[in-house]
Amino acid sequence: MEIRELQDALAAFARERDWGPFHTPKNLAMALTGEVGELVEIFQWLTPEESAAVMADPERATAVRHELADVFAYLLMLADTLDVDLAAALTDKMVSNARKYPA
Amino acid sequence: MEIRELQDALAAFARERDWGPFHTPKNLAMALTGEVGELVEIFQWLTPEESAAVMADPERATAVRHELADVFAYLLMLADTLDVDLAAALTDKMVSNARKYPA
Amino acid sequence: MEIRELQDALAAFARERDWGPFHTPKNLAMALTGEVGELVEIFQWLTPEESAAVMADPERATAVRHELADVFAYLLMLADTLDVDLAAALTDKMVSNARKYPA
Amino acid sequence: MEIRELQDALAAFARERDWGPFHTPKNLAMALTGEVGELVEIFQWLTPEESAAVMADPERATAVRHELADVFAYLLMLADTLDVDLAAALTDKMVSNARKYPA
Repeated sequence: MEIRELQDALAAFARERDWGPFHTPKNLAMALTGEVGELVEIFQWLTPEESAAVMADPERATAVRHELADVFAYLLMLADTLDVDLAAALTDKMVSNARKYPA
Repeated sequence: MEIRELQDALAAFARERDWGPFHTPKNLAMALTGEVGELVEIFQWLTPEESAAVMADPERATAVRHELADVFAYLLMLADTLDVDLAAALTDKMVSNARKYPA
Repeated sequence: MEIRELQDALAAFARERDWGPFHTPKNLAMALTGEVGELVEIFQWLTPEESAAVMADPERATAVRHELADVFAYLLMLADTLDVDLAAALTDKMVSNARKYPA
Repeated sequence: MEIRELQDALAAFARERDWGPFHTPKNLAMALTGEVGELVEIFQWLTPEESAAVMADPERATAVRHELADVFAYLLMLADTLDVDLAAALTDKMVSNARKYPA
């Protein structure tokens, strides 16, 4: 599945649970923060080298996959609610960053 | 462009600027935090209702697009570095969430 | 207990557990992020009005106290490690903010 | 100045600027997030060793002091709004942590 399909699946999931009223951009931005916090907790006491090998530990690898999925879910829902095309926004940003940081 | 293509473009961008050594999972998780912080700052003093109308203000709309792009960029790079398939991780998570939160 | 005493107690606590090597400023900044994420999770689905009444719910009140304590602990340890006097830094900031935002 | 005095000074500062209506716990928790994000940005590309020496660079040292002050300010205002005694909450947490993590 790709971005638009994932967003449609997440929107259907929320609709079926009547979560719509909770999913204001303000609340989704907070939920995104909370999930990023959980992701960061996995890495906080690791050295940079240990962080690079984190997927070799099956338990940590599962936690990383779960937290990345949660962060991605809230980012997709937030962008969808705001009607922002994430891929287009990122492509535009890369063009302006290419000017800002020459190779 | 879709997820894999965006990740390849971001990886090429980083490679051309010799940013590889900085892009450990630990550092990328921190950079993700920083960008989420900038996104949250747009919404922090808005009421939920104002947050729902944020894209009607052209200046704020531009800021939202930029910050969403930055968050997405670091999330894509982090997942790529860890070799996690974001779409698959999210699809798996939705299956387990469907059990956890019945409709 | 006040700021300096709390920092001394936290430093003794960490020393007795040999946590010193983990407590680099980089790691403590990450740990602070993680705790702020947990604090934010308490408020993310509440309306502003509900958030103002959060302490009336005993379970949530306990969670709020715990998370505020954790955030405070990492902030105190980070400032101590960096040898920054938090009260002085804040007093200075208020002076410059008074100029930036006239009453 | 100590905790209670700093909180009184911050409350007076906000009152003189009519910021009260914006300072719900939900909004203050978001503002805290934003400031922690700015603090984390200082450390994100540094190695743990570089992070330990960050105060030797006068420009970075100033940025660290400013961001620590901002994080502290929002933490103090949030605790004050919620009527949580930060020092007591932290002392209680240390007692329970001492049981959870024996020396």
